[in-house]
Amino acid sequence: MKTEDARTGLEWVEERDCLRLLATKDVGRLGFVRGGSPEIVPVNYVLDGDAVVFATGPGSKLAGAATGASVVFEIDDIDPTTRSGWSVIIHGMAYEVTDFDRPALVERVRSLPLNPWADGNRPHLIRISPRFITGRRIGPGRSG
Amino acid sequence: MKTEDARTGLEWVEERDCLRLLATKDVGRLGFVRGGSPEIVPVNYVLDGDAVVFATGPGSKLAGAATGASVVFEIDDIDPTTRSGWSVIIHGMAYEVTDFDRPALVERVRSLPLNPWADGNRPHLIRISPRFITGRRIGPGRSG
Repeated sequence: MKTEDARTGLEWVEERDCLRLLATKDVGRLGFVRGGSPEIVPVNYVLDGDAVVFATGPGSKLAGAATGASVVFEIDDIDPTTRSGWSVIIHGMAYEVTDFDRPALVERVRSLPLNPWADGNRPHLIRISPRFITGRRIGPGRSG
Repeated sequence: MKTEDARTGLEWVEERDCLRLLATKDVGRLGFVRGGSPEIVPVNYVLDGDAVVFATGPGSKLAGAATGASVVFEIDDIDPTTRSGWSVIIHGMAYEVTDFDRPALVERVRSLPLNPWADGNRPHLIRISPRFITGRRIGPGRSG
């Protein structure tokens, strides 16, 4: 069964398909609030169950502003030439994960291609526990 | 002259190059704050001078939350397989543009490929006046 957003005509993507799409990417955008203003930062991530995990450097403003806070995370794949694509958005809370808790997870994040902390410095790992996950699809291939 | 972010090693992109990159894309992500929480929505946009303009439907929550507010807008092009890419981030204020002020601009936004309001309904046009524009580049092609 397909469901559509009545206002925009975009098709909703079910949560299990959102998780499948999240597993196909490794760069997304983190949104958070700092000093009352919105911020967006692209991050290289891994999916750990239904949670998004990314690394940030020691002492970064991102770690301070996003940890213990309500955040949003977005991925998309949109091709204007074919007028089709999809987006997945996670709303949740961000928490720090320590090396001691999850050594295998730390290793996965360290091996990400765009991770500036691959050189051996200890990153801060931030994990987004999803409160809700929504996805939308647009265009000719949207029922695929 | 190249300048780098001392903490991350990413190369900064000059503002005129950020504007050139903004002209190469037509989908970006708008970040705003709604009820204290961060939101990200992908939007189909046009560049109007150094301002980003996108459409939203009448009565949408986005229009209400983002108009007259501090917003952030992000585009990127990142290829993890070559470990390279770039991102451009605009911080600014969002204001509504009316058909009456800017008919040619309205027409450009209406013709965007992923615009659900291409059917002739009157969209709300939102214009982001940049307060500052920053860009960063990572990877082998970053000096190009």
